[in-house]
Amino acid sequence: MNAIPPDIVRAACAELAVTDLGRARWFYADLLGMVVTAQQPGALYLRGLEETTHHSLVLRQAPAPAAARLAYRVRTPGDIDRAAAYFTALGCPVRQVPAGATPGIGPAVRVLDPLGFPVEFFHQTDRVERLTQRYDLYRGAEIARIDHFNVMVPDVAAGYRYYTGLGFGCSETIEDGRTLYAAWLYRKQTVHDIALTGGAGPRLHHVAFFTHESHQVLRTCDILGALHEEARIERGPGRHGVSNAFYLYLRDPDGHRIEIYTSDYYTGDPDHPTVRWDVSDPRRRDFWGHAVVQSWYDEASPVLDLDGTQVPVTAPEHREAGVTVGADGFGVRGSGPEAVPFKAGDQV
Amino acid sequence: MNAIPPDIVRAACAELAVTDLGRARWFYADLLGMVVTAQQPGALYLRGLEETTHHSLVLRQAPAPAAARLAYRVRTPGDIDRAAAYFTALGCPVRQVPAGATPGIGPAVRVLDPLGFPVEFFHQTDRVERLTQRYDLYRGAEIARIDHFNVMVPDVAAGYRYYTGLGFGCSETIEDGRTLYAAWLYRKQTVHDIALTGGAGPRLHHVAFFTHESHQVLRTCDILGALHEEARIERGPGRHGVSNAFYLYLRDPDGHRIEIYTSDYYTGDPDHPTVRWDVSDPRRRDFWGHAVVQSWYDEASPVLDLDGTQVPVTAPEHREAGVTVGADGFGVRGSGPEAVPFKAGDQV
Amino acid sequence: MNAIPPDIVRAACAELAVTDLGRARWFYADLLGMVVTAQQPGALYLRGLEETTHHSLVLRQAPAPAAARLAYRVRTPGDIDRAAAYFTALGCPVRQVPAGATPGIGPAVRVLDPLGFPVEFFHQTDRVERLTQRYDLYRGAEIARIDHFNVMVPDVAAGYRYYTGLGFGCSETIEDGRTLYAAWLYRKQTVHDIALTGGAGPRLHHVAFFTHESHQVLRTCDILGALHEEARIERGPGRHGVSNAFYLYLRDPDGHRIEIYTSDYYTGDPDHPTVRWDVSDPRRRDFWGHAVVQSWYDEASPVLDLDGTQVPVTAPEHREAGVTVGADGFGVRGSGPEAVPFKAGDQV
Amino acid sequence: MNAIPPDIVRAACAELAVTDLGRARWFYADLLGMVVTAQQPGALYLRGLEETTHHSLVLRQAPAPAAARLAYRVRTPGDIDRAAAYFTALGCPVRQVPAGATPGIGPAVRVLDPLGFPVEFFHQTDRVERLTQRYDLYRGAEIARIDHFNVMVPDVAAGYRYYTGLGFGCSETIEDGRTLYAAWLYRKQTVHDIALTGGAGPRLHHVAFFTHESHQVLRTCDILGALHEEARIERGPGRHGVSNAFYLYLRDPDGHRIEIYTSDYYTGDPDHPTVRWDVSDPRRRDFWGHAVVQSWYDEASPVLDLDGTQVPVTAPEHREAGVTVGADGFGVRGSGPEAVPFKAGDQV
Repeated sequence: MNAIPPDIVRAACAELAVTDLGRARWFYADLLGMVVTAQQPGALYLRGLEETTHHSLVLRQAPAPAAARLAYRVRTPGDIDRAAAYFTALGCPVRQVPAGATPGIGPAVRVLDPLGFPVEFFHQTDRVERLTQRYDLYRGAEIARIDHFNVMVPDVAAGYRYYTGLGFGCSETIEDGRTLYAAWLYRKQTVHDIALTGGAGPRLHHVAFFTHESHQVLRTCDILGALHEEARIERGPGRHGVSNAFYLYLRDPDGHRIEIYTSDYYTGDPDHPTVRWDVSDPRRRDFWGHAVVQSWYDEASPVLDLDGTQVPVTAPEHREAGVTVGADGFGVRGSGPEAVPFKAGDQV
Repeated sequence: MNAIPPDIVRAACAELAVTDLGRARWFYADLLGMVVTAQQPGALYLRGLEETTHHSLVLRQAPAPAAARLAYRVRTPGDIDRAAAYFTALGCPVRQVPAGATPGIGPAVRVLDPLGFPVEFFHQTDRVERLTQRYDLYRGAEIARIDHFNVMVPDVAAGYRYYTGLGFGCSETIEDGRTLYAAWLYRKQTVHDIALTGGAGPRLHHVAFFTHESHQVLRTCDILGALHEEARIERGPGRHGVSNAFYLYLRDPDGHRIEIYTSDYYTGDPDHPTVRWDVSDPRRRDFWGHAVVQSWYDEASPVLDLDGTQVPVTAPEHREAGVTVGADGFGVRGSGPEAVPFKAGDQV
Repeated sequence: MNAIPPDIVRAACAELAVTDLGRARWFYADLLGMVVTAQQPGALYLRGLEETTHHSLVLRQAPAPAAARLAYRVRTPGDIDRAAAYFTALGCPVRQVPAGATPGIGPAVRVLDPLGFPVEFFHQTDRVERLTQRYDLYRGAEIARIDHFNVMVPDVAAGYRYYTGLGFGCSETIEDGRTLYAAWLYRKQTVHDIALTGGAGPRLHHVAFFTHESHQVLRTCDILGALHEEARIERGPGRHGVSNAFYLYLRDPDGHRIEIYTSDYYTGDPDHPTVRWDVSDPRRRDFWGHAVVQSWYDEASPVLDLDGTQVPVTAPEHREAGVTVGADGFGVRGSGPEAVPFKAGDQV
Repeated sequence: MNAIPPDIVRAACAELAVTDLGRARWFYADLLGMVVTAQQPGALYLRGLEETTHHSLVLRQAPAPAAARLAYRVRTPGDIDRAAAYFTALGCPVRQVPAGATPGIGPAVRVLDPLGFPVEFFHQTDRVERLTQRYDLYRGAEIARIDHFNVMVPDVAAGYRYYTGLGFGCSETIEDGRTLYAAWLYRKQTVHDIALTGGAGPRLHHVAFFTHESHQVLRTCDILGALHEEARIERGPGRHGVSNAFYLYLRDPDGHRIEIYTSDYYTGDPDHPTVRWDVSDPRRRDFWGHAVVQSWYDEASPVLDLDGTQVPVTAPEHREAGVTVGADGFGVRGSGPEAVPFKAGDQV
C-alpha cells in the first residue's frame, strides 16, 4: 500500500480502565506523584511534573480492568487525516473523535491497529503549567513524564514490520538466528516510545513513566514498604541490559503493570545503530543477572476494541520454553523451581 | 535571502586549542572520564561513554588557548552543500573540508558564521563502540555525551534571529521589556544545543557535557579536592533556574570553561513552549540564590577564524551594571563588594 | 580541682527562642521534616525521624531570638548529681530542674558553663516511636537525628581545655604554630558533639542535624528555591574538609543557623587520632575551595543565662585578618571585594 | 562464672582462607575498592578507605575456602589478659599470639568460642593513613570500613546468651512466642558488630563492609554486569527491614559471602530499645517484600579451629519449614516453586 503514515511525535497518553478510582488515585497521584489536571465523574486525567501537555494518563472507572487506549501525538493537524487514511487503507476500524471528547485534547482519530490495539492519534492539546521546579509539590516517585508503552504480541516480527512501516526507528532487539523475541522502537529521541514483548496478545504489558535519578526509585520502594504495600513491587529495582535504564515494575490496585524508568540514552542521530542482544545473554533482561519473576512475562492487561469489548488473545507461535529469556517475555530455562536460585552466569 | 538552511541534527563536536596536551588529557580523560578514540601528534580525539560517533571533543596543541571550531552534525550529505550555499548567501567565509581531514569524519564545510564563530557542518562519521555498559571503564565525572555550546555575543537579539533562522527552537530566555539578555536554543529534543550569553564576543563561554546523576557531579568535585585542584571549580555545583539542570563549572588547565550538566527536559513537541525568565528573578541564574562569581561572566575563550587568527571582540552595547544578572552574564547589581553577601532574596 | 565530671553520652537537645512559632514550625517540621512530639502554648518539641528519645529540639516563643539551652544526655541518674557537684566546684551557676519541667524529660541540672553557655544535663527521657521506616512520613530534608552543636568562643584553647576536661575526645582541629582556631570534640562515636569556632562569644553558631544521603540535601535546596525562600540558603551545599561531611547551612526565620550534615566517620576506637588542619590549607573550610560568605563567620545567635538574660559577648583576642580562614571563623584574607573571585588555590 | 569479660570495642578484622589469592585480590581491592596495607607470600592485608587501623581483612592462600578468624579489638592491653581468663574459665581452647604474628597487630589472644568460632582479641594496631579524602583512589564499591560479622548457629538463643554475657547490646531480633530466630548485637554505636542467624553451624554467613551512599552499591552491581561477573550478585540490592540498611550480598571467587552495607542508625544511648520483628512480618528480611534466594540461607563458609581444622557443623533443632523467613535464615514458606512468585503481602 502507498498511503503516507502520520508523522508521529511520541507516545503521549494511556487510558486505563480501573475498578476503584479512589484506590487508583492513591497509586498514581500519591505514590507515583503524578498531578491531577482534570477530573470528571468516573474519570481522572493526570500528568507528570515535567509535562506541559494536558495529561498523559487517563483513569476511567469500569467494571473490569483493561487498557482502553494508547495515544500518540502527531506533528500537525493534517497528520490526523493522514492517520485515518493510512489505517483505512490497512483495513482497520477507524473512528473520528471530535475535539473535547477527551478533556484538553483536540480532534483525534482512533483505530484498532493491525496488532489489535486501540490506538489514538491527536495533535492539539491544552497547555498546562510545567511543575518541574515546584519541588514543594514533589511526592513519591516524582514522575517527570510518560516515557513509553510496552505491548505483548504473539508475533514480534509482524509488530516490528508494522511499526517500522509507521516510521519508527529500532534502538534494540533480542533475537537469535531464527526468531525476533522483542524489539524497542522510537519516534522521539529516546530508546523507545513502544516496546514489543513476545507473548499472548494483544495485551498491554506496561506503561512506563520517567523519573530522573535512581534514588527516586528506591524511595518509591521504601514508601511501599512503609505502607505495607510492598506486594505491589513485582520486579526490581534493577538495571536493564536493554536500554541501560534503572527500572522498577509495580502493579497498580487493578493489576496494571507500571514501570518507573530512570536514565535512558539519545537516539536522534540519522544513522542511530540498533543494539542486538542475543537471547542467550543473561544480562539483556537484568544487567545484574537476576531472574525475572514468572508473573512479569505471564501477566498483562487485556485491551478493548473501539466498542469497549475485550480483544481476544492469541498465543505466540514459538513458545520456546528451553530458551532462557526475561525481558523478551518468553520464560526462563526450566520451570519455577529451578528459577529460584537461577543465576545468569550459570546459563552460559 | 531565500537559501534553505541545512537540517542540523545537534551540537556534535568542539575543537579546543590547548598549550599542554598532556595536562589537557589528564583533565578530559582522567578527571572528566572521556575516552580517547584517536590520537595524532599534537591532537587528541575524545568522546563520552555513551557516544557512538567518532568523537565530540578535539584537543589540539597550540601556542595559545582558543576555541578553534564548533561542529554541528547535519541530517544528510546534501545538507553540507546546503550549508555552503546558505552561508555563501549570507556573505560568510566558507571552506570545503575533504573527508578524513578530521579523523573519523567525512566531508564537511567550515564557515565563519555571522556571529563570528568558526562553525563546521558534517554528516558522515565513523561509528565507535558505545561504552555505556562498560562500567568498569567509568572514571571521574563519567561523561556520557556532549550536550551543548554556550557562546558570548554582544548582541543576543541578533544571535537569536540568526539561530532561529537556522531552524533552532527556543526553550528559555532571560529578558525584560527592552532587552534579550540570554537565550537557549535547540535542535535535538533537549533544552539546548547552543546558548547565547550576553557579553564581549564572539567568545566561547563553555562547552557542556552530560552526565546522568547528581552524585557524579559531587564525585568530580571531591576528586578535584583530593588532588588539591579545587581551584578548577569555578562555580557550583548548583541547580540552574534556566533548564533546571544540576550544574558544575570547571576551568581546564588552559582556562577553557567546561560545564558538567546533569538532568534536562524533553523539548520535542511541535509547539514546545518557551520559558521566559524575568531578569529580576534571582533564581534564573542559580535556583538556590547563590551569587555568580565575577570570573564566570567576565572570562571566556577567544575564537579563531578559518585561518587560525583570533577574531576581535566587541563589547555589548547595553552593559547594564544596574541589572542583577548571572546566567545571562550581564553582571551583578553593584560591584564586587556588595556581591559577596548578596542573597537572591534581598533583591526583591 | 578533683570533682568527677558526669559521663556525657551525647549532644541531645537544643532550645531556641523564636519570635514566630508558626513560621518556625514551617521551617523545622515542613522544610526540615522533623516531627512534632509534643506542643504547649508557646512551645514545640520536635525530633528527627530516627530518634527514640522524646525530642531533640525545643522551639519557644519569645520576644527576641536566642539560644536558650544546650542539653547533653548523661549515662546514669547519678551523673546528674555529678554534674551539679562538678560545676559547683567550677564556680558556675547551677540550677536543679525537676522531672517534667521539660515534657518527656526527667530531673536535670542546668548550669552556665565556664564558656558562658546555658547547658543542661539529663538522663531520663520518655521513649517515642522511631519513624525511620515510616517513609510515608518523610518530608523535606528528612532529618534523622540531631548531630552536634557548634559554638563561637573568643578563646578556642580555653574551650578545648574545658571540654577535654569533661572527657571529650578531639577528632579534628584547625591551628598553626601559635593558635588553635577551631576544634571538633566528641563523646558519641562520631566526629563531634560540640565544635568550637573562634569568634565573638559566647554565641551559638549552629545546631546540626543528620540526614543520610547527599540527594536529601540537594532536595532541601530545591524546595527552598521552589518556595522562593532561597535566601535561607546561606552556604553550601558543599563538602567540608574537616569531618568530610556533605553540608548545607540554612538560616531559620529568626536567623538561627542550622546545618544539615550528611556523612561522618567512626571515632570510637580508644586511640582515635586527631586530624590537625593547617590554617593555610584552603580545603579545611570547603574541600572544593569555595570562599565562605562573610555572614557565616560574623553572625551567630546570642545565648541566655539561667535567668533568661542575654549573656554579654567578648571579641576574640587574636583576630587575624591576614589569615585566610573559613570553617575556623576567623575571616578571609582581605575584605569582601577580594573575596568574591577568591579561589582556594590562589592562597598558597 | 564470675570472670570479668574483656571490654570489646568493635568487630575489627576477619581472616578468610582463599584458594586463589590473585582472584581474591581482584574481588576485594579492584571491585570492592579496599586498599592493600601489607602483603606477604600467600597473604594480603586490606583495609577500607576510612580506616586508620592497620587492616580489617586478611586473605590467606589455602587449599580450601574457610573462615579462619574473627577478630575484635579490645579497649586496653589488660583486656587481652581478661579475655584469656574469661575463656579459660568457660573451658574454651585459648592461645596466646605474640605481637607481630599478624603484621601491624600487637599481642593477642585466640580462642575457640563457646559457639565454635575462632575468635581473636587484640588491642594494639599500627596506625595507617585514613584515605577518606583521597577520592582519587576510590574504586568500585568504595568500601569505608568493616561493619560487622554475621554467623550461622544452630541455637540462636544460646548465642544470644553468650554475646550478651560478653556485654553486647541487642538492637533487633526476629522471633515468635517460642523461638529466637535471629539477633543483632553491638558494642560500637551501630546496629551490630555481630549478627546471629539460625542455621547449621558454626559457619560464617557473611562479613559486612560499610559504604556511605546507595549509589555506590548500584555502581558495584553495574561493574559486575560490565565484567559479566553478575553471577556474584547473590541477593539485592534491597532494603533490610531489620537495621533499615540498604544492602547487597556478593559471593567472592571462593564463595565467601560479603555484604555491602549502607546506612545504619545510632545505638549509643544507655537504654537503647530492642526492635523485635515477628517472624511473620514479610518485611523483616526485605523491606520491599522480595523473596530470599535459597542459597542465601543454605550456604555459608566453614570455620577453622585453632589448629586450622574445620569445625564440624550441627543442624538447628527446630528447622521450621512452615515458617516464612529470610533474614533469619529458616527458609521460606513452602518450597522453591511457591517461592518464585512469592510476594510478602500474600503471606498475611
